[in-house]
Amino acid sequence: MKLHILGCHSATPRSAAFPSSQVLEIGNELLLIDAGEGMQIQLRKYKHKFNKIKHIFISHLHGDHFYGLVGFLSTLRLIGREKEIHIYAPVGLKEIITLQFKITQTDINYPLYFHELSAIESTQILSTDKFTISTIPLTHRIYTNGYLVREQPALRKLNIEVVRQYPEIETWAFHNLKRGKDFIREDGSLIPNHLLTLPPPPPKSYAYCSDTQYKPDIVPLIKGVDLLYHEATFLESEKDLAIKTRHSTARQAAQIAREAGVKQLVLGHFSSRYPDESLFTKEAQDIFSPVAIAQEGKSFEI
Amino acid sequence: MKLHILGCHSATPRSAAFPSSQVLEIGNELLLIDAGEGMQIQLRKYKHKFNKIKHIFISHLHGDHFYGLVGFLSTLRLIGREKEIHIYAPVGLKEIITLQFKITQTDINYPLYFHELSAIESTQILSTDKFTISTIPLTHRIYTNGYLVREQPALRKLNIEVVRQYPEIETWAFHNLKRGKDFIREDGSLIPNHLLTLPPPPPKSYAYCSDTQYKPDIVPLIKGVDLLYHEATFLESEKDLAIKTRHSTARQAAQIAREAGVKQLVLGHFSSRYPDESLFTKEAQDIFSPVAIAQEGKSFEI
Repeated sequence: MKLHILGCHSATPRSAAFPSSQVLEIGNELLLIDAGEGMQIQLRKYKHKFNKIKHIFISHLHGDHFYGLVGFLSTLRLIGREKEIHIYAPVGLKEIITLQFKITQTDINYPLYFHELSAIESTQILSTDKFTISTIPLTHRIYTNGYLVREQPALRKLNIEVVRQYPEIETWAFHNLKRGKDFIREDGSLIPNHLLTLPPPPPKSYAYCSDTQYKPDIVPLIKGVDLLYHEATFLESEKDLAIKTRHSTARQAAQIAREAGVKQLVLGHFSSRYPDESLFTKEAQDIFSPVAIAQEGKSFEI
Repeated sequence: MKLHILGCHSATPRSAAFPSSQVLEIGNELLLIDAGEGMQIQLRKYKHKFNKIKHIFISHLHGDHFYGLVGFLSTLRLIGREKEIHIYAPVGLKEIITLQFKITQTDINYPLYFHELSAIESTQILSTDKFTISTIPLTHRIYTNGYLVREQPALRKLNIEVVRQYPEIETWAFHNLKRGKDFIREDGSLIPNHLLTLPPPPPKSYAYCSDTQYKPDIVPLIKGVDLLYHEATFLESEKDLAIKTRHSTARQAAQIAREAGVKQLVLGHFSSRYPDESLFTKEAQDIFSPVAIAQEGKSFEI
């Protein structure tokens, strides 16, 4: 898995500060998470193929997280998209997009599915052979979900040295061995799987939490994830403003990372009031490390 | 008057090719004409003050001409706009914007007025002490208007050498002389205005025509304008496509400019299929000159 940042600033777009949008690369697929204005420009700039996007996840219906979506969907029509698109978003987005397509007389010529979310409990919303995605209920001024992406467990690896010691294990049996089954001889006796195979690398996981106030409830959901992207709109010096607007400070994001024991923290959704984003790292590092700063065009290996 | 191009490409935005948007500078005001995605990024990039915009004109409800509007209006709220905004656009835009503000729970804290257009005849839609604006009915796949901006006539200039020869003309009389009135002596006799004043420079005019098929009907409306911005999505080699999609070729735009006897032609709304935009100038120059190519960040003195 690899995370590519398209935009990581709050509120109003500027030439070098795009609102929230990112793609998570899993195998040959890109999961698009949030879609601030100009997101399609950023996709082109950083050479991410539109064709690799099939699933889109919108955290909440504030403009800086979805105003770029309708343009992107229109572009897909123009460039002759045929494959389906699935959008997971709070109730309301379908109405907004559908009205615009009606009034602009846009005839979407690819299958477009809306999966509207309204549950307040964490819910698994998608499971493929490669990954699962669940919502992370957040608390903001409006109904909001983060998203938790987990790779499906990989197949076990054959311990080929050991397997060779058993001539009765022929290659047709490998399929089941990789899936954790014991080998059963013709006489009914058994060779346990753990002798014949090695465990796969642990599946990777990624949690996206934006926008939200400091919310320790989410800790059990994101326990031990490999990468946590958590919003840090403010610094502690503006903590009152964070509380009022239901955003987090860098320190609070780091507290969540520490309590959840995540492997790496990436901060984003910065207010434009701060001239130097290294201030966010400094504040968070007192609580948790490793911590990195999101930046347009930056990628994080998971 | 001065025209500043924010975007002049058709359809899908890219890093260096923004969809239609421009501002016309008149005195201390900026008239915003069309609002493709990323328009607010371009305004910031080219240092146009948001505060100078009060009137917004949308030609038609295809996404590449208005998807940037909702984000711009949201930004105005965030930066504490107090002055009113007037939007002139086809019926439907108000519904689109209003729905988005409702669902995003955006409380617009400045007066926002929609003037929805549906007339098929040219109509004067605004008259201030500085300028008037009328629609130019165009023919595209959807209801579309161009816009004709005319400066109000300036005051006549005092011919101060002549005025000095009449000691009875005191300074209090200048106000009326500049407005074209004759000077009337106490004995009732008269000095005609044309002896005492010089005509002002002729008022400037600007016509925006995008998107449209070749439409000679508009020629009487835009007769002799100082600057005509006319769409040229295609070259003559793709004339069939222009007819099918109700767009114009560079040659057709030049024909309109020639028939209307405009002073200068600027071409825009280029399809991304052409790698070299100088091809548009070449094609148009056979028919009309001077012709220029619109380009993001370029300005044209009128």
